[in-house]
Amino acid sequence: MTADDLVSLRRDLHTRPEPAWREFYTTARIVSELESRLGDDLTELYVGPDALATDQRMAVPSDAELTHAYERARGTGVDESVLEALEGGYTGAVAVIERGEGPTVGLRVDIDGLPREESDDPNHAPAAAGFRSEHEGAMHACGHDAHATIGVGVLERIAESDEFSGTLKVFFQPAEEVIGGAKSMAESEHIEDVDSLLAMHIGLDHPTGEIVAGIDGFLAVRHLEAEFTGESAHAGGHPEQGRNAVQAMAAAVQNLYAIPRHNDGKTRVNAGRVEGGSASNVIPESARVVGEVRGETTELMEYMSEECERVLEAAATMYDCEVEIETGAEAPSATSDQALVDLVADVVGDVSGVENVLERDDLGGSEDATFLMQAVQDNGGNACYVGIGTDHPGGHHTATFDVDEASIGHGIDVLAGAIERIARTQS
Amino acid sequence: MTADDLVSLRRDLHTRPEPAWREFYTTARIVSELESRLGDDLTELYVGPDALATDQRMAVPSDAELTHAYERARGTGVDESVLEALEGGYTGAVAVIERGEGPTVGLRVDIDGLPREESDDPNHAPAAAGFRSEHEGAMHACGHDAHATIGVGVLERIAESDEFSGTLKVFFQPAEEVIGGAKSMAESEHIEDVDSLLAMHIGLDHPTGEIVAGIDGFLAVRHLEAEFTGESAHAGGHPEQGRNAVQAMAAAVQNLYAIPRHNDGKTRVNAGRVEGGSASNVIPESARVVGEVRGETTELMEYMSEECERVLEAAATMYDCEVEIETGAEAPSATSDQALVDLVADVVGDVSGVENVLERDDLGGSEDATFLMQAVQDNGGNACYVGIGTDHPGGHHTATFDVDEASIGHGIDVLAGAIERIARTQS
Amino acid sequence: MTADDLVSLRRDLHTRPEPAWREFYTTARIVSELESRLGDDLTELYVGPDALATDQRMAVPSDAELTHAYERARGTGVDESVLEALEGGYTGAVAVIERGEGPTVGLRVDIDGLPREESDDPNHAPAAAGFRSEHEGAMHACGHDAHATIGVGVLERIAESDEFSGTLKVFFQPAEEVIGGAKSMAESEHIEDVDSLLAMHIGLDHPTGEIVAGIDGFLAVRHLEAEFTGESAHAGGHPEQGRNAVQAMAAAVQNLYAIPRHNDGKTRVNAGRVEGGSASNVIPESARVVGEVRGETTELMEYMSEECERVLEAAATMYDCEVEIETGAEAPSATSDQALVDLVADVVGDVSGVENVLERDDLGGSEDATFLMQAVQDNGGNACYVGIGTDHPGGHHTATFDVDEASIGHGIDVLAGAIERIARTQS
Amino acid sequence: MTADDLVSLRRDLHTRPEPAWREFYTTARIVSELESRLGDDLTELYVGPDALATDQRMAVPSDAELTHAYERARGTGVDESVLEALEGGYTGAVAVIERGEGPTVGLRVDIDGLPREESDDPNHAPAAAGFRSEHEGAMHACGHDAHATIGVGVLERIAESDEFSGTLKVFFQPAEEVIGGAKSMAESEHIEDVDSLLAMHIGLDHPTGEIVAGIDGFLAVRHLEAEFTGESAHAGGHPEQGRNAVQAMAAAVQNLYAIPRHNDGKTRVNAGRVEGGSASNVIPESARVVGEVRGETTELMEYMSEECERVLEAAATMYDCEVEIETGAEAPSATSDQALVDLVADVVGDVSGVENVLERDDLGGSEDATFLMQAVQDNGGNACYVGIGTDHPGGHHTATFDVDEASIGHGIDVLAGAIERIARTQS
Repeated sequence: MTADDLVSLRRDLHTRPEPAWREFYTTARIVSELESRLGDDLTELYVGPDALATDQRMAVPSDAELTHAYERARGTGVDESVLEALEGGYTGAVAVIERGEGPTVGLRVDIDGLPREESDDPNHAPAAAGFRSEHEGAMHACGHDAHATIGVGVLERIAESDEFSGTLKVFFQPAEEVIGGAKSMAESEHIEDVDSLLAMHIGLDHPTGEIVAGIDGFLAVRHLEAEFTGESAHAGGHPEQGRNAVQAMAAAVQNLYAIPRHNDGKTRVNAGRVEGGSASNVIPESARVVGEVRGETTELMEYMSEECERVLEAAATMYDCEVEIETGAEAPSATSDQALVDLVADVVGDVSGVENVLERDDLGGSEDATFLMQAVQDNGGNACYVGIGTDHPGGHHTATFDVDEASIGHGIDVLAGAIERIARTQS
Repeated sequence: MTADDLVSLRRDLHTRPEPAWREFYTTARIVSELESRLGDDLTELYVGPDALATDQRMAVPSDAELTHAYERARGTGVDESVLEALEGGYTGAVAVIERGEGPTVGLRVDIDGLPREESDDPNHAPAAAGFRSEHEGAMHACGHDAHATIGVGVLERIAESDEFSGTLKVFFQPAEEVIGGAKSMAESEHIEDVDSLLAMHIGLDHPTGEIVAGIDGFLAVRHLEAEFTGESAHAGGHPEQGRNAVQAMAAAVQNLYAIPRHNDGKTRVNAGRVEGGSASNVIPESARVVGEVRGETTELMEYMSEECERVLEAAATMYDCEVEIETGAEAPSATSDQALVDLVADVVGDVSGVENVLERDDLGGSEDATFLMQAVQDNGGNACYVGIGTDHPGGHHTATFDVDEASIGHGIDVLAGAIERIARTQS
Repeated sequence: MTADDLVSLRRDLHTRPEPAWREFYTTARIVSELESRLGDDLTELYVGPDALATDQRMAVPSDAELTHAYERARGTGVDESVLEALEGGYTGAVAVIERGEGPTVGLRVDIDGLPREESDDPNHAPAAAGFRSEHEGAMHACGHDAHATIGVGVLERIAESDEFSGTLKVFFQPAEEVIGGAKSMAESEHIEDVDSLLAMHIGLDHPTGEIVAGIDGFLAVRHLEAEFTGESAHAGGHPEQGRNAVQAMAAAVQNLYAIPRHNDGKTRVNAGRVEGGSASNVIPESARVVGEVRGETTELMEYMSEECERVLEAAATMYDCEVEIETGAEAPSATSDQALVDLVADVVGDVSGVENVLERDDLGGSEDATFLMQAVQDNGGNACYVGIGTDHPGGHHTATFDVDEASIGHGIDVLAGAIERIARTQS
Repeated sequence: MTADDLVSLRRDLHTRPEPAWREFYTTARIVSELESRLGDDLTELYVGPDALATDQRMAVPSDAELTHAYERARGTGVDESVLEALEGGYTGAVAVIERGEGPTVGLRVDIDGLPREESDDPNHAPAAAGFRSEHEGAMHACGHDAHATIGVGVLERIAESDEFSGTLKVFFQPAEEVIGGAKSMAESEHIEDVDSLLAMHIGLDHPTGEIVAGIDGFLAVRHLEAEFTGESAHAGGHPEQGRNAVQAMAAAVQNLYAIPRHNDGKTRVNAGRVEGGSASNVIPESARVVGEVRGETTELMEYMSEECERVLEAAATMYDCEVEIETGAEAPSATSDQALVDLVADVVGDVSGVENVLERDDLGGSEDATFLMQAVQDNGGNACYVGIGTDHPGGHHTATFDVDEASIGHGIDVLAGAIERIARTQS
């Protein structure tokens, strides 16, 4: 069973989902939880800019968006001094417990929400139980509210543990959904001495009570943004004088999805957000596509990226428009180390409520945790990405996604157990 | 020469462009000008809901948009009691001068701005002279600031005239750009007793000093809005579970413009504003097209409208999405009566600064003034749409549009002269 | 009434439709008719290469196609010596009657068929009456069988006339449907001394008994052929290794039709014939579009042509293909001279069976007769394009097109009458 | 070393590539080779209809195509009585050697060519050595000329072998490239008593000297043919009266390739052959797509098939056209049995010239051999698909494909060796 107060925490975070680099309330709330729950057991707490290589943030939103979210957080009663530290979109935190001799174990949990509306269907649990998102156009549709809660729970458990000797660092990472945050933590000093890193995700189509010891199959990913510029004209009087950026964009979208499939493995493309034009009677002079490409390997991702650029440029040319393409945030692939996979699989046997353990499974998506995993592995350490099953009514990133709160307890049990075991093993 | 104070009025309106049904500041400013300039000479002034058949407004924006513009206007110091009358988007005014026996002459001027950003090029006159739009994303890019000013100027001139006997009604019409306002004035009581109606437009590729006595060639127009609904999914993990509304929209846009040309005359289609999707990693579940069709005749407009609907529906089906299509505001065609065209052409000879008069020309666009023209003509009256040339650096509806302020004086001279002549002729 | 033997001629030509530059049987049959009907009244008969500026032929088909049609004609029993003169696709003829003093009057009739299958619906008159096309994939779907017959009939009538003094030249022109033949006649010596030229077309949505004295509104036209080249690959094994020419072609087609409409007048584009690829399991390495653009003026045609080229090139780039674009045959616009229009309109009054005469109408299509009209007009002569109404069940160029044979007689009456009148007037 | 006379056979077959169901010359030549090489050692030879379940042929071409190929074969001097047996497209043969007690072993080789032009680059070996395809538009671009030769070679080897006891049946299968032939052999009586089946393919990106003991990863496949029907019209005069089948087809092609990728595995779609329209000045009334879908599993192939149908139907609707979709030939997936894979891998060690053996590899394409493999496996037998490496300059199905003739010998050695071993093992 998950402690009621952790469920409260998760639900509170759920009502205030904050997308990438706008996790102001979220970070402040985590800080306040840690301080009240751990007190002196918390050796260090690095907040906001102190937790990051600040020049390595990717996919930071506009000042207007940052300010809007910041002001919203200020109205909630959280500690203003913490908020001030985060201003400008330096969110996230690294919490450290040092407890004698032993290895340094890292745990990475991500904390950001998604820019999408949550279902208001009365059968959707958050709506029914009164903790539906209060932020218009934002939702914890991927379970990071539960991740952050598990991070807090693991710290609390280890603080109370008799079986842990060593150092635990929990990375409360911002901006995963835009694959924008992990790199700035992976390039900070905090990762340098980590001997073993655990990362985790809830759900992923695994039911409550099922654990995946080692997740692989991370798709390499790159974000793309294309801005088409043409020329406006009166749509009734002189359509021929326009250079129609929306036609260019539409031609691009149609043909982006039609890039040939590749025999070497999975490829993906998505024009996830588009917009263009101004009014019905004006030939559109601008249009924009915000999208992404992925590949089962970095090479496949690069293949998609190159094809995309050619399609975008040709579509612009087709309508005598210009296009500026910016490649944004990206993340590599990574693999869970067998030693840690075995260890996690072994620990799971002792966890109450867990009925099934899979040794390996594929993510089938992307994750910037791979930056942190690679950093640790490059330093000679081990890394493992653990899946915590949860019954979820809607798919990830959809309006009806939700988690079975029982799985929060499973996550804490599995991860705290693995952390104790790592410390014991590596001492 | 245009009086300096009228130039000031035009520039002030230019800095505060307000798109359809949000002409709060604009209406209040016009009211205050008329009261101070005409005083007791103004027989009646119908403001906002009193000027309209309130249930005939078309293309009214959302409450949020109305409120945003309303609150902005409240901060400008205009008369709050006038503003309150307009609340909810009941903008515009009808000003009446009754002066003895004689016919009732109408003049229609439109007052709304466009939802597009104005150029900040230092060579763009409004930027250079300090009256560039202060409203982000809005601009007087079609000269309605000058139209409103001409309306005020004509009322002032007739008030001071010795040669006018009869009734003058000036219709300060809102929401022309969305062809949403004229119908509600055409169905109000104010149009019923109008014997002769003049409407006017500045520019239209005619230079300063050129007047078109009778403009025709109005394209019939209809607004369309299509909302595509699919199903979201994680773009990396399960693209096949999505039903991609942006792909549907892009297919629609491409094929809308490819509707066959028609041998019977001009046809138009424009997907003027599109948007869709939420985030780069989510298969888009919704997308929207705001567009329009036009035709040289109502039949041709209907042809385009039917073809559009089929394309939109098929595009939705193609991606297993649904689409809801709403047809919005529309306007018919109309013709200027020869008697008034002759009269205007005759008057123009006396106007200083006018060097050239064309009897007829085609608009090549659409105009909801046609509702008012038809209403008057259906009642047995005459109507005429006059073009007032003005040098304009950029085309209508583009970021660098501007008017030559000398043409404001030409407009007042021509229209006031024609009104006097009509009154004299028809008495 | 049309003479039965002329109806027989028309029906015989109808059964053997021969598209551009393959009018072998057609030319030979016309030659044989003229020789038997006119005998010594025929002053000169220039056949095939003698009728043309042979280096000015446009849109000549492949040797294989020429040979196929030539061999087919050889099997029909027509005069082999005439056929031999035509070999290689030098078809058509110029027939001359010289009769004393007077002007040189030209009449141009076109003689080619279209590459399309004729309807086999038993209600389709040619099918019902047993003269449906015997040439697979070819059809007289535009009435040129009737045109050729009228040319023969007019020569016969003038040969028998007491009222003609001067010279008559009838141009039996090949390859009109590909706008490929008129130029080579317009650049031949035969046109140089023509003082007045009549050209004609049957049908054009005018019913039997209606004559249009002067047709205008010829759309300027240009043919385009685009050959896309990519790279083939196994569609199952390595789709990513292909560069898909059919995708490029499809993108081009979609966007060609979406070129913006032009406010200055009619524009047209058609991808009339496309093909690409080889087998279902091979990524297509080649594809082809055979199309055309038109415009109400030459400028509008050029606008379309330039836009097309950009679309074709961008579509190729989009799929990493190459494209070779060849612009083929083209024709300018032209206008019927008022003096001839008046003369024709006047003559029509005397023709039995004609109930209605329109002074002017627009063609709304293209015609390479404009080359001949321009040549005569450039030499100081007059030209006029006459419309001979005929009830036609299906539209021009469709499978169920047919002519009302009564209109053949109307055509002969109107044109021979006009020729007599011209000779009389200009002497 | 491959015997010179087998090289001659292969080259002769190479010059006369015959696509699906037109293997008239090919079959007759194989028959004549077998008769002259094996004489009385050949127990039975079932030719044409005697080798097939004649009502199970799929993807049979038109009578005209069959007749054309048949007449061509008649001109080559092959045995007319054999040809007559094949008339109507009943091609292929089953050759049987019965030699005492023992199991019945099958070997399947396919014999058809592809409908694509061969390279005439002088560096392309067949062009250089004078055995380039003499059949316009056809080519052995997948090595089936070598397959047929290997089939003959294996029969000859076994006929001469001291180590074989049992029955050998070699299936010379027609129409593999259209996945049209295997089913009719799989449903014939000849397969019923086969205990072990070997199938084989040359090349597949494996170099000369490399053998794959067991190939898997066959993609399930289905052929699709879509016929769009609209309405023609004159492209200049009345484009609006047409219903453009080429626009419908182009919209379909663009969107077929854009069907979402599926996370469960490989999916494929190809519009391998398209055509439409008639002439540049006629709005196209018909268009056709010949294509295919594939999937790593039958479910994935069905997913693609359903999506395709929706896209095709919606594209037709979009342009007010009709579409008829026919699903054609198809093939399932299959797996090589481990026992045979082990046996083949073991045999390969003894074969001279073979330097490398892979136990397993994926085909990544489709093959109708799966019908025969399934039939044998369903009867309780074993099946195995063997890959024979060959250096090939161009990819399979491309104009520069060719085989290294040394690999013909490897194929005979490996397969004959395996057949002997199977007989020995299973006796």
